[in-house]
Amino acid sequence: MDATDISREPWKEIEDALDRGDTQQIRTIIESRSNAELTQAVGRLHYQARQRLALSLPPRDMVKFLHKADPLVSAPLLALMKPENAALAVAGVREDIRQSVLKNLPDGDSRIIMASLSPAERKAIQRRLSYLTNSAGALMTSHFVSHSIDATVGDVIDKLRKNAEEYADYEVQYVYVLGENEKLEGVLRLRDLLFKDARNPVREAMIAEPAQCHPEASLEEMIAFFEERAFFAVPVVDGQSVMLGIVSRKIVLRAATVRANNTMMKLHGIIGGEEYRSMPLGTRSLRRLSWLTVNIFLNLLAAGVIVLFEDTLLRVISLAAFLPIISDMSGNAGNQAVAVSLRELTLRLIRPAEFGYVLLKESALGLINGLALGLLLGIMALIWKGNLWLGLVAGGALAINTIVAVCAGGILPLALRRLKVDPALVASPVLTTVTDVSGFLFTLGFATLALDWIA
Amino acid sequence: MDATDISREPWKEIEDALDRGDTQQIRTIIESRSNAELTQAVGRLHYQARQRLALSLPPRDMVKFLHKADPLVSAPLLALMKPENAALAVAGVREDIRQSVLKNLPDGDSRIIMASLSPAERKAIQRRLSYLTNSAGALMTSHFVSHSIDATVGDVIDKLRKNAEEYADYEVQYVYVLGENEKLEGVLRLRDLLFKDARNPVREAMIAEPAQCHPEASLEEMIAFFEERAFFAVPVVDGQSVMLGIVSRKIVLRAATVRANNTMMKLHGIIGGEEYRSMPLGTRSLRRLSWLTVNIFLNLLAAGVIVLFEDTLLRVISLAAFLPIISDMSGNAGNQAVAVSLRELTLRLIRPAEFGYVLLKESALGLINGLALGLLLGIMALIWKGNLWLGLVAGGALAINTIVAVCAGGILPLALRRLKVDPALVASPVLTTVTDVSGFLFTLGFATLALDWIA
Repeated sequence: MDATDISREPWKEIEDALDRGDTQQIRTIIESRSNAELTQAVGRLHYQARQRLALSLPPRDMVKFLHKADPLVSAPLLALMKPENAALAVAGVREDIRQSVLKNLPDGDSRIIMASLSPAERKAIQRRLSYLTNSAGALMTSHFVSHSIDATVGDVIDKLRKNAEEYADYEVQYVYVLGENEKLEGVLRLRDLLFKDARNPVREAMIAEPAQCHPEASLEEMIAFFEERAFFAVPVVDGQSVMLGIVSRKIVLRAATVRANNTMMKLHGIIGGEEYRSMPLGTRSLRRLSWLTVNIFLNLLAAGVIVLFEDTLLRVISLAAFLPIISDMSGNAGNQAVAVSLRELTLRLIRPAEFGYVLLKESALGLINGLALGLLLGIMALIWKGNLWLGLVAGGALAINTIVAVCAGGILPLALRRLKVDPALVASPVLTTVTDVSGFLFTLGFATLALDWIA
Repeated sequence: MDATDISREPWKEIEDALDRGDTQQIRTIIESRSNAELTQAVGRLHYQARQRLALSLPPRDMVKFLHKADPLVSAPLLALMKPENAALAVAGVREDIRQSVLKNLPDGDSRIIMASLSPAERKAIQRRLSYLTNSAGALMTSHFVSHSIDATVGDVIDKLRKNAEEYADYEVQYVYVLGENEKLEGVLRLRDLLFKDARNPVREAMIAEPAQCHPEASLEEMIAFFEERAFFAVPVVDGQSVMLGIVSRKIVLRAATVRANNTMMKLHGIIGGEEYRSMPLGTRSLRRLSWLTVNIFLNLLAAGVIVLFEDTLLRVISLAAFLPIISDMSGNAGNQAVAVSLRELTLRLIRPAEFGYVLLKESALGLINGLALGLLLGIMALIWKGNLWLGLVAGGALAINTIVAVCAGGILPLALRRLKVDPALVASPVLTTVTDVSGFLFTLGFATLALDWIA
């Protein structure tokens, strides 16, 4: 069998090839399978098979593999290789991928690999790692085509033609025109080269003072940049206008997608914003457990309120059935507001300081929805026990607590952002604690006040 | 003041211009402000100001506005315009935006506007609307450059040069080569035009049998397509290879980002996957309330379990404090698994049929985390009341219920996907109901069995 059989599970194919010691076949699989399939394949391999794969894969095949599969599952393979082979593979990997590969390695392994790189490569990687995640400096690549300003359009076309093979990987759209000391002077678009006479000097054909950004530019700034303009890439320059690299629209949009997914994961208590089932069980378990453990301690606060009111509960035991409803419903109502605030913060529709605006919008909504839900629960309680006061206590508590929850949920992400805490990871557990404590206080407090009528 | 003052809130500027009746200034604002600022501005305008804006804006300015601001906030402005002006504006809008504009209008308004369009335009829009959301047919644009196959490279360059102004908007990367009956025969890349001799026939310079897709292709298929290839766009053809349009990488990535955000919003109970605080209060309130109302009925199932065990609760009232903890913790643990499954489904790392794999992975994790959390809660109960049996009941119930929750959370999104129900919107409430019912059953059931030792 010299072609891969697409109908088969890719990880079973790799296992078979490993069993036969057929490294040529593994190379064929890496070349023919899609990125998603390779990511899935490694995720599904048993630990021993993964180890055998890492030990038998030549560095140049590992490079191909790292270019295709998600670094989150592919990087750990490096830690299983011989260090000198791993270093060779890392050195061969495209620089924009290299960083995420190293980030997904345990510290010890990345140190060993870094140590075996050349000083120049090490320095380049370290400079890259020093930029904030998702800043222009972290997302830029040095795979761009440049030309000196003292030339003609024909010279540029000749250079492109001569290096067509090398540039094929670059998705060339622009040629950056550099002056003295690599300073960015202008940009030539492919179509400019096509439409202008070859004898024209570059200086006249180029777009001078082109759009550019600094390596500190944030993902939000770059998203806004590409939304306003139909460009394929933006050059990154330092304070002296020296060209450092380019950030492509593609990379920016991918980073935005990854971030949106991470937010979703964090909101559901996945620390770090990412988990694949192919990660080691211990890692997955610990990540999830650390968030849950914080939650259990937060829960004690709410449980404490119930303990305070045990006497009331003993006299009106049917209240016990209302407590989880009020806790769950307020949590739900508040989390809706959390999601809307997170989204509006990301889209920059609101600023972290606009408490007043959010409060205004959410209190009106909380009032309507609180009254509606409270009325519903109140009627249910009235029908169940035939006691108007019980209906008033349960319905009133849910109504008021929904207002509290919706307002708190709307404001919390803003407050956390101002405190430089990640709202996606923290807003939901803090909100639930607040709404549980207040919800139980309202329910059991009102019940205590109305005890003579409902007991 | 003839330039806009960037330091001012854009909606205040619009309000001022409306007060002065200065439509020229409003045009300047639309041209100079960013997309995000315009979206925000309209969102923040009071209803009356929005109405005045809609009535005073000439259709051609409305077109500019629709090209920049998010259709979700800009489309409703059309409903406030005179119908004939609204129709003019819709007819002038770029076709890939027109569809989302019409989708965001109330049915009545979009019917009136559709009726005033020419039959050809109406037919084109209706065909567009007939494709599934996020399919290639829905995302494609007819803004592409084509040329007949019987020509030379020089002819194509001449056509590009002559129409340079019109094509400036198109972000031209490829020229599609069409044969008889508009059948797609090949693709010319800009760089091919640049590097090849002008006298070459197109037939030889083009890439024959180029990558293509059908209008039914899903967003997942297109994401996978662009992940594998460095293309800027893919041509869409019908069953007879007739070219219908192109789908650009940019549109696909944007659709993927929007969908990731929608998933996050739906997971938090925002029906439709989107809410801006600038939407009318009634719409926001109803959307959130409809999801909450379903939840309150689901909650009754869990409350019913508590009612069944009222006698046990009366004898061991301290159990009341444990119920919300067990409900909250199991819900949290299960929702972590929901998030991981949703993500792996989206990334196609798992298929909806792989229950066994997910169960295998989640049961192991559930066992570890269940034991850890159960032990923690058990020890807390033991310390609080000095009763070993109470610790065993509370800890044991949480341990077992965490396993149930994690397994159910992992499987639920797969099952819902197979049933063609949107897991993002439904998984969380169904999961919480299941884990509440089972959690209360375990806690109160175990307590009833051990009643003589813990009472």
